[in-house]
Amino acid sequence: MLIVYHYPICPISRKLRIILKEKKIDFQLVLEKYWERRTEFLVMNPSGVTPVAKFPDMTFALTGNSALFSFLEEKYPAHPLISQDLEEKFEVRRVTEWFDVKFYNEVVKYIMNERIIKPIVSKHHLEPNSSMIRAAKKNLAHHLDYIEYLLHDSNYLCGDIPTIADYSAAAQMSVLDFTGDILWNAKPKMKEWYALLKSRPSFRPILEDRIPGFAPPDYYSDPDF
Amino acid sequence: MLIVYHYPICPISRKLRIILKEKKIDFQLVLEKYWERRTEFLVMNPSGVTPVAKFPDMTFALTGNSALFSFLEEKYPAHPLISQDLEEKFEVRRVTEWFDVKFYNEVVKYIMNERIIKPIVSKHHLEPNSSMIRAAKKNLAHHLDYIEYLLHDSNYLCGDIPTIADYSAAAQMSVLDFTGDILWNAKPKMKEWYALLKSRPSFRPILEDRIPGFAPPDYYSDPDF
Repeated sequence: MLIVYHYPICPISRKLRIILKEKKIDFQLVLEKYWERRTEFLVMNPSGVTPVAKFPDMTFALTGNSALFSFLEEKYPAHPLISQDLEEKFEVRRVTEWFDVKFYNEVVKYIMNERIIKPIVSKHHLEPNSSMIRAAKKNLAHHLDYIEYLLHDSNYLCGDIPTIADYSAAAQMSVLDFTGDILWNAKPKMKEWYALLKSRPSFRPILEDRIPGFAPPDYYSDPDF
Repeated sequence: MLIVYHYPICPISRKLRIILKEKKIDFQLVLEKYWERRTEFLVMNPSGVTPVAKFPDMTFALTGNSALFSFLEEKYPAHPLISQDLEEKFEVRRVTEWFDVKFYNEVVKYIMNERIIKPIVSKHHLEPNSSMIRAAKKNLAHHLDYIEYLLHDSNYLCGDIPTIADYSAAAQMSVLDFTGDILWNAKPKMKEWYALLKSRPSFRPILEDRIPGFAPPDYYSDPDF
């Protein structure tokens, strides 16, 4: 069976778990504390980051982000998560990349590292760096306006059916929701969109994730928030 | 004709110019000083970064990175830059992403911004932040070992013919070569590889790029360096 090395609060690990469920591909999860830089893990992925996907019939492990997801989509064309039309496909990939790279690097990375990873790694529950959190939240406010704009005339980010862009976005947002950094009521379209995604069976395991020492807000697990 | 909005030292702009030449797609270049945040440019790409590609028959402009290059490869399958075999394709995409995202974010972004963009934007030829340059060069040393490793038994990064991974990598390396940050003689396989790419006609315009106020090393334009 496919083995997925993940960390619960890693957004790309979350995206992978959601997408495998949506594509009905069975897998087994292995918890990987990537900062411990386990030798066997580094052999599979010298970059040292989660997620890593290892199929039993392949000699190498799948790593990366868009490379990994393009591979899955091409190897398992059933339950497609992207249109076959070239221009629609471009838009889905563009929005996906926007969340995976820009939104992650300007917002999620700082909030996740400062609020969760740093206290765990340091073992001293270090306080988050407030200027980093402030900068990330300033970027976040700007980016949430863009998300609301993308949803202004559709239920999902790239039209009226969910695509890999929605799962990529929701995986990133779920990390910020875990840390309590999203004020949902300020963005009604976005809230409606996230509620639709939250209620999908593929999302349920994400909502059950817990990290010792950290409590998400009560509404984190509630599809009716 | 396709219009490409670019900045000469932007690595993804360079990659796009090389790839369009390799795929024999005609285009016209427009110099975009992206930090000026020109209104018409922001309408095409709210992210405000180069490159942007605008086909006359399309209502929207192409932006992003892997989204843009996947679109080009699918719309123009002639002169393919990636294998059709699923596992080989994965490896090409993985290496491409490694350069476009990791290598860029950990090395090229800092060196380019500190050594070139900051002095231009500030108009006061501000000195680069030496601790940022030092961190980037520390990452660079580590990453060059990985490149040398990827080339240990092949002429190109993913086998014996050039792929989009090589053009992506060479575009990033060319920025560091422009700023004089690569000691080629320390990495013989990498030097041989870069010489092969430098001698391709698609690379020539990159070697002719100049930015007022900055002089690349003499060997920058020389395919026999």
